[in-house]
Amino acid sequence: MSSSVVPVRVATAEAAVHTEREDLLVVEEPLEIRLGFGAVEDRKEIRLSVTMRTPGHDAELVRGFLFTEGIVQDEERLLRIVPCQNVKAEELGNVVRAELHPSVEVEPAQWQRNFYTTSSCGVCGKSSIEAVHVQCPRRIIPFGPVDPVLVTALPERMREAQTVFRHTGGIHAAALFSRNGELLSVREDVGRHNAVDKVIGAALGSRLPLADTILLVSGRAGFELVQKCVVAGIPMMAAVGAPSSLAVQLAKDSGLTLIGFLRGERYNRYAP
Amino acid sequence: MSSSVVPVRVATAEAAVHTEREDLLVVEEPLEIRLGFGAVEDRKEIRLSVTMRTPGHDAELVRGFLFTEGIVQDEERLLRIVPCQNVKAEELGNVVRAELHPSVEVEPAQWQRNFYTTSSCGVCGKSSIEAVHVQCPRRIIPFGPVDPVLVTALPERMREAQTVFRHTGGIHAAALFSRNGELLSVREDVGRHNAVDKVIGAALGSRLPLADTILLVSGRAGFELVQKCVVAGIPMMAAVGAPSSLAVQLAKDSGLTLIGFLRGERYNRYAP
Repeated sequence: MSSSVVPVRVATAEAAVHTEREDLLVVEEPLEIRLGFGAVEDRKEIRLSVTMRTPGHDAELVRGFLFTEGIVQDEERLLRIVPCQNVKAEELGNVVRAELHPSVEVEPAQWQRNFYTTSSCGVCGKSSIEAVHVQCPRRIIPFGPVDPVLVTALPERMREAQTVFRHTGGIHAAALFSRNGELLSVREDVGRHNAVDKVIGAALGSRLPLADTILLVSGRAGFELVQKCVVAGIPMMAAVGAPSSLAVQLAKDSGLTLIGFLRGERYNRYAP
Repeated sequence: MSSSVVPVRVATAEAAVHTEREDLLVVEEPLEIRLGFGAVEDRKEIRLSVTMRTPGHDAELVRGFLFTEGIVQDEERLLRIVPCQNVKAEELGNVVRAELHPSVEVEPAQWQRNFYTTSSCGVCGKSSIEAVHVQCPRRIIPFGPVDPVLVTALPERMREAQTVFRHTGGIHAAALFSRNGELLSVREDVGRHNAVDKVIGAALGSRLPLADTILLVSGRAGFELVQKCVVAGIPMMAAVGAPSSLAVQLAKDSGLTLIGFLRGERYNRYAP
């Protein structure tokens, strides 16, 4: 917790009356992900990306990111994730190195663009969906009928487990539940993609089978979040907010059950 | 509008009662940005990035993105933005080319990573802020005292002008206001960064002076959104959601007035 929030002095205006008080802010800091090949520090290293994230669970974030973006398709080939020591003092903790098996093929040109998957085989909705399927190591086993009582109980369970949101009111969350609605893990981050990467990375790290889980996100269901579920083999995703056109299309094409606008006793099912 | 929303068949559950109905979804499609140097199609071309966006106002999105990310620092050097014709039929409209003056220096290696600015001079909060200042073509002229009556009126003005949100309930918005609270423009997008890029790109394209404006965003105030304001010289930013630690720090260091949690008659001022 200590590195996820910082105190701030804030001036509050309410009905034009000003007061000053202490408040808490969610921490945002850059994280650089490097790829190394083999365990020796001075061997080939590629700087993959810099993302803005809330510190904490960084190894899970990197694991989830590499896997759901299709950069590492086989978890066995991700040997370990370590903080880089050969950096400036102020960068310590903000640079991590993912060590890959030397057999992993790297095409840096493919990673020059922001979105790895969507850029690989065409720039339209249809080819974005095809690209996800091509790089998918797992098939989704359809979730089956949805129990409304179970689904509508999920958001409150996630909120109860959120620690940073309670203090700051300003952070995204993702939670993984069992088929029976039991909370397995929750992660928070300033970036909604990061929260999903962390929760999926945690499950991959603990070798939790994802084929029988439900992912809940605090925000909207965009294409890339549905992509992460599909690549991870998660059969059902629920979002407090709205889905996009391409997210619904990908869910339908993949056999993913997609729920949106999950609020109180109400929700919409967009797929199947 | 026609390309911003699509109809969808949706199953709604409310208190465990199911109904089927037609609904509208916000459209999400990839957009590839290419850089060209000089006006001739077959000259040097670099594929810069692919972003998921809601179609519409693409040229504004590209203009705002290139400028606020520091890829083009001088608007005079961005000659024109055109849809690419030499693409597959299904990609038409999803690939645009920004033609730059041949004198613009391009360092593709610098753009290989997701975040252009933050990756250029170190991976920590302090150097992220320094990087924004280094590439800043404009200085912020401090906004001065904030009028609570004016500020609390802004969100409703933005909502009234949002067309896609009214139909879908699921899209981010950014709006630019004059110092007196007059709405100058509003843009919507599935991506919150895109909405801000569009509204700033529109202002740049119409040569609207930004030094006397207020930017309002429907979501949170993260580092990168504050960065976009600072680079554009916008002196005040207000967010319906929470700011992050690094966003507040950048605002303080830049002289930007930063408002968060702007809801009803209440808001917090984090900087100055």
